[in-house]
Amino acid sequence: MDAAQVLIGGKWREANFKTTFHAQNPATGQTLAQAFPVSEWADCEAAVLAAGEAAEKLRTMAPERIADFLEAYARNIEASADKIARTAHEETGLPIAPRLKDVELPRTVNQLRQAAAAAREGSWARATLDLERNIRSCFEPIGPVVVFGPNNFPFAFNGISGGDFAAAIASGNPVIAKAHPLHPETSRLLAEEARKAVVETGLPPATVQMIYHLANEDGLKLVSHPGVGAVAFTGSRTAGLHLKRAAEDAGKPIYLEMSSINPVVLLPGALAERLAEIAQELIDSCLAGAGQFCTSPNLILMLENSSAEELLDRVAKVFQERSPQPLLSSFGLSQMHSGVQSLVKAGAALVTGGGVAQGAGYRHENTLLRATARQFLVTGEALQREVFGNATLAVVASAPEELQEIVGQLEGNLTGSIYSAKSRSDDALYADIAPGLSRKVGRLLNDKMPTGVAVSPAMNHGGPYPATSHPGFTAVGIPASMVRFAALRCYDGVWQERLPDILRDKIANPSTWRSIDGAWVKG
Amino acid sequence: MDAAQVLIGGKWREANFKTTFHAQNPATGQTLAQAFPVSEWADCEAAVLAAGEAAEKLRTMAPERIADFLEAYARNIEASADKIARTAHEETGLPIAPRLKDVELPRTVNQLRQAAAAAREGSWARATLDLERNIRSCFEPIGPVVVFGPNNFPFAFNGISGGDFAAAIASGNPVIAKAHPLHPETSRLLAEEARKAVVETGLPPATVQMIYHLANEDGLKLVSHPGVGAVAFTGSRTAGLHLKRAAEDAGKPIYLEMSSINPVVLLPGALAERLAEIAQELIDSCLAGAGQFCTSPNLILMLENSSAEELLDRVAKVFQERSPQPLLSSFGLSQMHSGVQSLVKAGAALVTGGGVAQGAGYRHENTLLRATARQFLVTGEALQREVFGNATLAVVASAPEELQEIVGQLEGNLTGSIYSAKSRSDDALYADIAPGLSRKVGRLLNDKMPTGVAVSPAMNHGGPYPATSHPGFTAVGIPASMVRFAALRCYDGVWQERLPDILRDKIANPSTWRSIDGAWVKG
Repeated sequence: MDAAQVLIGGKWREANFKTTFHAQNPATGQTLAQAFPVSEWADCEAAVLAAGEAAEKLRTMAPERIADFLEAYARNIEASADKIARTAHEETGLPIAPRLKDVELPRTVNQLRQAAAAAREGSWARATLDLERNIRSCFEPIGPVVVFGPNNFPFAFNGISGGDFAAAIASGNPVIAKAHPLHPETSRLLAEEARKAVVETGLPPATVQMIYHLANEDGLKLVSHPGVGAVAFTGSRTAGLHLKRAAEDAGKPIYLEMSSINPVVLLPGALAERLAEIAQELIDSCLAGAGQFCTSPNLILMLENSSAEELLDRVAKVFQERSPQPLLSSFGLSQMHSGVQSLVKAGAALVTGGGVAQGAGYRHENTLLRATARQFLVTGEALQREVFGNATLAVVASAPEELQEIVGQLEGNLTGSIYSAKSRSDDALYADIAPGLSRKVGRLLNDKMPTGVAVSPAMNHGGPYPATSHPGFTAVGIPASMVRFAALRCYDGVWQERLPDILRDKIANPSTWRSIDGAWVKG
Repeated sequence: MDAAQVLIGGKWREANFKTTFHAQNPATGQTLAQAFPVSEWADCEAAVLAAGEAAEKLRTMAPERIADFLEAYARNIEASADKIARTAHEETGLPIAPRLKDVELPRTVNQLRQAAAAAREGSWARATLDLERNIRSCFEPIGPVVVFGPNNFPFAFNGISGGDFAAAIASGNPVIAKAHPLHPETSRLLAEEARKAVVETGLPPATVQMIYHLANEDGLKLVSHPGVGAVAFTGSRTAGLHLKRAAEDAGKPIYLEMSSINPVVLLPGALAERLAEIAQELIDSCLAGAGQFCTSPNLILMLENSSAEELLDRVAKVFQERSPQPLLSSFGLSQMHSGVQSLVKAGAALVTGGGVAQGAGYRHENTLLRATARQFLVTGEALQREVFGNATLAVVASAPEELQEIVGQLEGNLTGSIYSAKSRSDDALYADIAPGLSRKVGRLLNDKMPTGVAVSPAMNHGGPYPATSHPGFTAVGIPASMVRFAALRCYDGVWQERLPDILRDKIANPSTWRSIDGAWVKG
């Protein structure tokens, strides 16, 4: 059997495999030619072993070396941008321009460069010095990190190039990437650019490794392997919870981003003031990437009145007019369709859409559903089901108290948005709703849709369970996302010359922020 | 049935209970008069409900109010220090002076005051501002925290007064304390001082609650209760792992400190230089608190030579001479004894001790065991069993490589110490051993025994699994220990006046450190 090679121990080599899989072009339904291997356990074992050796060597290297690698990788990706974007377009159906080439690819190389800058600066390690007692601590690499990338961002969240990858490498760890099987050739191209950058900058060969696919039980074994330091996962709640339990039972930190319906509250004053503008933002946010974003607004909350009806009319109209974009796979289509059906079964009414769409590939009608607040409140979690795709549920409340009740019943989410009147006529209502909503989400927005997660040091792309597995960590935003892949280490009475450079009285790097006797000091 | 009351919802009230228990004086074996209730689930449910309401109110209060409470509580404890220390002495057998009254109690009130100062300063929340994009984030209270205190520190780690308590309160959360059933009256006295401080400073009544004991299955239910924000536990690995799984399956952050044998490596040059001094430090560290410290040195690693033999002779001699101090309970004695026996069964030889000691109460002979490195390496984890008490195992290696191998096989520990020659004759050996040891521990010490955990901002009282449940967090050291009980919250485009004070452009508190556009700025 012929199949693409896996990247293990610094070399492209034949996988240990019995079965293969193919990617499809979801815009056409066409199966692509290249076969990819479903790795047997032997590939995982080899990768963990090699990663362990790479981790040892990385610890002895200056952070500048790691930064050089991240920057070389970013340059390599840019040099092959056309080919990578074309391949990703073929495997995902996402448009080359602007999405893949002009937005996601620049974002991805920007993340790599931010991570390089953070590695070089050193402040991410939060060095803390108690000079009087000679006790010092900082964050240090945790060991090999396994990154499971999701289906919906072939670059920016890819296990071999995305935010988790950049954060894990920048904090000094080798990465074992589990590519998503919906875009294997894209991942292969990226991995080759990474491999070249490893060679160019002289990092340990196994700093970057990648396999394409593996059996579920091997995934569970991999995340609980004694040689693994930590795990990052972005994907479905079902898969995430299985990996979570396996990793946690083995005492491994695992960071999961699993599901979110991203409630958007549209207060009446805001609708009275600027309905058309808000409708436009909402529609664009719901349909961007065919709604396949973890921050896609799946739930719209409004008070019953004519503006709410007008907004729904507008949304329904545009949902009907716009051609549905392809979903990422036939499985994604069937999942989305059954999600919509389960919302209907739970009592939601279809306003528009609801069916599989005509046309080539895997497409679903842009779908708007509605329900009353009462329905939402009595059905428990049935109307909180995430539908990953171009569908959204509007819930119309007959009184402000119902909105508050709904917010109180929400599961943990990544984001929560509130639109309010600039005239301030919504201020009292905002004050009633915002505190409760804030506690259910990782990021509270005002007058903004949740899609478009800025790579900012102040970003929190995280939130309460079950949106993620721990409310204290963010997956986006450098340097905060890096500490997920680090262990806190303390040096108590350790001789000056034996300390890591970052903890010595005099630090070589003038850019590093450290907390010395309670004050933050640079250099 | 008459039994002490539990503190729920701000009031001392009769527990829901069917059975009671009594503390014992472990120095005499005498059962103490007061009966304490084993709470039924109804007490847990009531406490969580009340804590949820308190959490809501605490969020709206200025941090100064919380700081005032912590300081009032510290003062109240000091005012009742004699009574509290006498009671703790009766329940634990630990000496009133210096241990309880002059060391642990001052440490405890110092922790409360440091936590108050941190709450007041505000820097713990790590406010991060991206002014250009108007994205801001900080840590905020996570919700009601359940704290399980251990048996060995009736004040400094007590669920109602210790480090976890102080950190959870200072970060703005109510605490439900599960007192340790070996010192219930001590806990009751402390809880009463806490309750008075709550009243004095006008905090929500249920900010501080306490139950004494509950069935194992109710413990599992409690840590997975939807109304609980996070859990802290200090105790045995067996109990810890059960709670860990229950909490994690429910998506709750749980911070556990479970077990550690705290390897101490004595390099040959250090022994040649200052054997008597090191022997003294080692003996004092092993026998302090009858060895019932989480950082007690359970494992001594040395190279085979005459100095090593001389050190063991000295330790054995003093172990024989010093009267064994009482252990905390009959269960502790039987656990310790079976631990020593299991080490013998795994191949360790008894140098001295090994039996239950004569005298009143629960005492075990000061026990020194030894084994060869070869034995240690072939028995896997059998010789890494933590023996909680006045026993220690010396492992003598025939070559430096064996020491390295042993370090490579260690499970995760809280601490690892290396003594080396001031003449620098051990430097090469140190360089071989320290990197491997450092990765197995949360705190690496030079020329210091691990007992005595300073409350320093740079402290890490944590370490890799199974010493704790996550290597990124410390249980001691303010403000770092506080973020365990906080959720990261981001405000994206939120109007200035709607932001928490700590995230506004102009902050009222001139003492708070914030990270603004990448630079740490005060006030």
